[in-house]
Amino acid sequence: MFFASDNWAGAHPAINDRLSRESTRFAAAYGTSDLDKAIERKFNEVFERDVAVFFVATGTAANSLSLASMARAGGLTFCHTEAHVIEDECGAPDFFSGMRMVPVDGPAGKMRPENLKERISRYPQDAIHHGRAAAITMTQATEVGTVYTLDEIDEIAAIAKANALPLHMDGARFANALQALGASPAEMTWKRGVDVLSFGGTKNGCWCAEAIVFFDPALARDFAFLRKRTAQLFSKSRFIAAQFEAYLKDDLWLDLASHANAMADRLRSGFNALNTARLAWPTNANEVFAILPRTSAKQAEEQGARFYEWLQPRDMPEKLAEDEMLVRMVTSFATTEEDVDQFLKICASA
Amino acid sequence: MFFASDNWAGAHPAINDRLSRESTRFAAAYGTSDLDKAIERKFNEVFERDVAVFFVATGTAANSLSLASMARAGGLTFCHTEAHVIEDECGAPDFFSGMRMVPVDGPAGKMRPENLKERISRYPQDAIHHGRAAAITMTQATEVGTVYTLDEIDEIAAIAKANALPLHMDGARFANALQALGASPAEMTWKRGVDVLSFGGTKNGCWCAEAIVFFDPALARDFAFLRKRTAQLFSKSRFIAAQFEAYLKDDLWLDLASHANAMADRLRSGFNALNTARLAWPTNANEVFAILPRTSAKQAEEQGARFYEWLQPRDMPEKLAEDEMLVRMVTSFATTEEDVDQFLKICASA
Amino acid sequence: MFFASDNWAGAHPAINDRLSRESTRFAAAYGTSDLDKAIERKFNEVFERDVAVFFVATGTAANSLSLASMARAGGLTFCHTEAHVIEDECGAPDFFSGMRMVPVDGPAGKMRPENLKERISRYPQDAIHHGRAAAITMTQATEVGTVYTLDEIDEIAAIAKANALPLHMDGARFANALQALGASPAEMTWKRGVDVLSFGGTKNGCWCAEAIVFFDPALARDFAFLRKRTAQLFSKSRFIAAQFEAYLKDDLWLDLASHANAMADRLRSGFNALNTARLAWPTNANEVFAILPRTSAKQAEEQGARFYEWLQPRDMPEKLAEDEMLVRMVTSFATTEEDVDQFLKICASA
Amino acid sequence: MFFASDNWAGAHPAINDRLSRESTRFAAAYGTSDLDKAIERKFNEVFERDVAVFFVATGTAANSLSLASMARAGGLTFCHTEAHVIEDECGAPDFFSGMRMVPVDGPAGKMRPENLKERISRYPQDAIHHGRAAAITMTQATEVGTVYTLDEIDEIAAIAKANALPLHMDGARFANALQALGASPAEMTWKRGVDVLSFGGTKNGCWCAEAIVFFDPALARDFAFLRKRTAQLFSKSRFIAAQFEAYLKDDLWLDLASHANAMADRLRSGFNALNTARLAWPTNANEVFAILPRTSAKQAEEQGARFYEWLQPRDMPEKLAEDEMLVRMVTSFATTEEDVDQFLKICASA
Repeated sequence: MFFASDNWAGAHPAINDRLSRESTRFAAAYGTSDLDKAIERKFNEVFERDVAVFFVATGTAANSLSLASMARAGGLTFCHTEAHVIEDECGAPDFFSGMRMVPVDGPAGKMRPENLKERISRYPQDAIHHGRAAAITMTQATEVGTVYTLDEIDEIAAIAKANALPLHMDGARFANALQALGASPAEMTWKRGVDVLSFGGTKNGCWCAEAIVFFDPALARDFAFLRKRTAQLFSKSRFIAAQFEAYLKDDLWLDLASHANAMADRLRSGFNALNTARLAWPTNANEVFAILPRTSAKQAEEQGARFYEWLQPRDMPEKLAEDEMLVRMVTSFATTEEDVDQFLKICASA
Repeated sequence: MFFASDNWAGAHPAINDRLSRESTRFAAAYGTSDLDKAIERKFNEVFERDVAVFFVATGTAANSLSLASMARAGGLTFCHTEAHVIEDECGAPDFFSGMRMVPVDGPAGKMRPENLKERISRYPQDAIHHGRAAAITMTQATEVGTVYTLDEIDEIAAIAKANALPLHMDGARFANALQALGASPAEMTWKRGVDVLSFGGTKNGCWCAEAIVFFDPALARDFAFLRKRTAQLFSKSRFIAAQFEAYLKDDLWLDLASHANAMADRLRSGFNALNTARLAWPTNANEVFAILPRTSAKQAEEQGARFYEWLQPRDMPEKLAEDEMLVRMVTSFATTEEDVDQFLKICASA
Repeated sequence: MFFASDNWAGAHPAINDRLSRESTRFAAAYGTSDLDKAIERKFNEVFERDVAVFFVATGTAANSLSLASMARAGGLTFCHTEAHVIEDECGAPDFFSGMRMVPVDGPAGKMRPENLKERISRYPQDAIHHGRAAAITMTQATEVGTVYTLDEIDEIAAIAKANALPLHMDGARFANALQALGASPAEMTWKRGVDVLSFGGTKNGCWCAEAIVFFDPALARDFAFLRKRTAQLFSKSRFIAAQFEAYLKDDLWLDLASHANAMADRLRSGFNALNTARLAWPTNANEVFAILPRTSAKQAEEQGARFYEWLQPRDMPEKLAEDEMLVRMVTSFATTEEDVDQFLKICASA
Repeated sequence: MFFASDNWAGAHPAINDRLSRESTRFAAAYGTSDLDKAIERKFNEVFERDVAVFFVATGTAANSLSLASMARAGGLTFCHTEAHVIEDECGAPDFFSGMRMVPVDGPAGKMRPENLKERISRYPQDAIHHGRAAAITMTQATEVGTVYTLDEIDEIAAIAKANALPLHMDGARFANALQALGASPAEMTWKRGVDVLSFGGTKNGCWCAEAIVFFDPALARDFAFLRKRTAQLFSKSRFIAAQFEAYLKDDLWLDLASHANAMADRLRSGFNALNTARLAWPTNANEVFAILPRTSAKQAEEQGARFYEWLQPRDMPEKLAEDEMLVRMVTSFATTEEDVDQFLKICASA
């Protein structure tokens, strides 16, 4: 019952096998091997267009370097108030890009378009004192388990376009969002106006595989230097490539995300059927936020369950009773139906 | 015949096996798992004292963050003129630490103590305009295949101590240097006055395992933040820990380095016995610099050999003939006697 | 009728005279002259304790370097949502300090203590992902013309102390705030818990005189390097010292601020007496925010008045009519009663 | 007898008078006043073409921001080994530009073209590990009192052009170099290929007036943001403009530099005529390096002379006797013939 985070899971067997095979051979270093090049081409196929792809070590690196590629002197990046880039990356985006993250409010972890427009309007391109709008970043799926619909992405992208701002998507849980929407990678990104994507594999079955995908090659011009200067160029880069090979082969990545989402659905259905516990708010991908009796939470923990108590958002409509707890549960490729059912059973018995 | 670099090798089977096992289980993220903690303790054992250990993604990160931990406003770091930190890391050490790298000359890739002293003396602690001496970094084994003797380390460390400067060691090829000297990890580091070590595993049989080892815990005080802010904290950190577990178990790491060094010895002996090729300068660890007839080099390449032509150092005593080439050859845990002998045979036939 | 900003005024005759005298002599450069030293001692007298004083070129430099002196890796600085450091300095505080500015809401340009406490509580000292609280900065007088009372400073300082955070005060309009409160420099700063002060002279009669005053000498330890590294050490530093000599002599600075405040009072009284215009909110120092008929504003401009239309704050209780405008008016040492009366007369005639 | 530095002098009366007049009026802040604009146009006239001009607080700021305007990720700036940007600005150029300064040797304070070419060739545009050449900066007049001839500037500029690198000139003593060469501002800069100039007024009669002049407007595109983000935008910017107005009017600046140079000539002639002291090396502008008996130096100091003992350059052909001292003497607009003659008289009497 490991629901603490999808990054508590190990690596999928197919990915592990591919790594094992890779370990036995020699190959050129620093991303110049044939395998590296082949995987870069595979991304073209996945996204149905020529893209520039760069591997990095962490999701934080993917986000921070994506924004660094969009940096302008005195530039500001607009993100949701609870976005990972502003609240969970210890200032790496600011450090790598030299930009400040400007928080934009909105319900359900999504920037409200009106708020985004209003904030951007305060920082026009000649605002030497205030700083100038330089980039927008959105998280898909969001930090709170929701997913921007394609129409909602269109709305954000339209604002980006109207203000001539590049649009970044933090896709740490990209596959989960894709499967939640039933959209193709192209449909959820460049076809809507996304310029740069943090493409995460680590939370969905790799052990370390993060990529930055540039749909706008102009933004990638200096990127090889930006990556090296931030110590993110692996010497044995091809081990990242190997993971992505297995990950992308025969749609494994989509299957893994579907499984994780299905496990979250099972949790959601379970909570909806209980009267001893309930969902805190609706979610779409592989995160579930539930309100449990503290006794259930404690009992689950004693039986080995792992999850995080969550700080109550200011705008949560549900009220917590004294003896209740808000918890976040994250499912992954490795979550089993048994785990889910056992957890629900504990809650039911409260 | 892959002699281009030790980072062209794959991963050792024992390390690969350990990774495979790790892939099947859940564990806490971001370096908080039991395995992460166990390996941190293992480092205490290896170094015969309590150390603070942090995993990072690359050797460049290890060096750059080590120096960041020593950073002072207006600080300067002294390194050899050809050091990796100044010539091969695209400014990452400067960016992460905010310090400038000051080159110090010396033969055979080692800072000459007199030069180091003279340079430091130009930047006293109140030198607001020039900047002030803040750190010394030495590379062991060096970029050109040599190894500081224990006495030579003492000399550098004495200068560090006399100037109250912390001393960093870039140990990308730490194990190769250890085995070349027949010294213990403690003897080659903190017992001589090294404060922080970049402990590299990647070049010696891991696919991605770099650690920073703090012998002076005071320097590690802010380190967790420095690492996160530079996007170097792996979520599935325990996969680094797993590699180090196998690497350090039963002295595997020392055996692998001994093998690489022995292969370099075999190359050295071979070149010494040839009159068609010769060593460019003496080396001690797993790098060999040789002067070959261009025809031999070409023939070797055609038969699949990989190595780099090397830019001739200004102070090289040997002179190259028109039809000769200076090449760097690096051996690794995966180099075989057959590879070495085949290469020498090609040279002999020139 | 120059009400656009107090930095539109020139320099006071006494300060100009002192500069003229200074221009005729030689003196040591880079802040080492006798005059520089004497003025540093004068600050001890003004603040009734030993302080460390450093001159810089701009108020933005004073704020940004003050925060740089408090910087910690992954550190966060808490400031009011509308503070100069977050909204008007183009990211200089972030760039110089490496910290992010975290906005804290509160009415009348002042951080509400509850909000400050709540924000700080989200960033404890081990919050590697979120970043950690590292500093608090408050503006006195605030951006919107109000002044923290001594009790209110106590409240903020108590929060700083409880969280072991250093407290900075942006005193671009320090003298105006002092005179508004009738407090002594010591009473409004270190006696309440302020650690570092941006002491502004430029807006109050100097042409370029900004100082950073350290009440906690430990924070000044590296400061000479921080200042030089940000290109803020004047070679002819003694011309700043000369301005401060005249500024501080015989309480000139306090007289100038009193005059500016009195002119603002005269404006306030005037608007209160009109029924064609009104104050937008109460202010205490040398800024006045008024709601005028657009026709009055236009007429005033045609007659040479200068002022800025102000973006309406979200929480402003007053409502603007269609034909009204919110304007900011700033008075200075150079504002005359005639200017004030003429402006009011124009408004009265609307 | 103030020969310590030209920044020990005060301000010229004409400049002081202009400042006094400026102090009595109101004007728009932050460089937007009519005066600021008029002086920008005056620079067009001085340089015989449309230029973009920005005022900053210090020479260090002028250099550091000039280089920041040329910055590229992983970029390297080439400068003379003893250049101010690498040895006397506490890392401000690195901090503002994110680039490393790469030292290039050459006699008499000038980069030797062969050395410059060789260094640049090591850092081609795809050198991700080494970093890539991004800018060249030369100092005119140099740190050691010499002046690049127009032909020598051509040589450096040709290298810049051949490598597609922008060329910066540190003109802290620009006027002194101009007068030494008898060249026009245009001839010594953009007509030879200089792209950006640090135009110093402070050492030559202003108390604080430094400007950055962009001959290539493309490099100025983001400059307003770079300047503000480094806290270098004066609110009362027009006081800089006022100094430049008087400075540039009726060629005052050239007259002042001619005077300083003439005083240096007088020193040089004097030393050449003595057999008790001698020149250490030939200089052309307003700096003189002399070898004195220590007794003379002591005697001069006792009589009020101020100068700096200079660290002996490694390549100085002259040898110092035990009882001799190498001193640097700098003349300025305020140096008198009497000062020079008195100093020489002391030396003669040794």
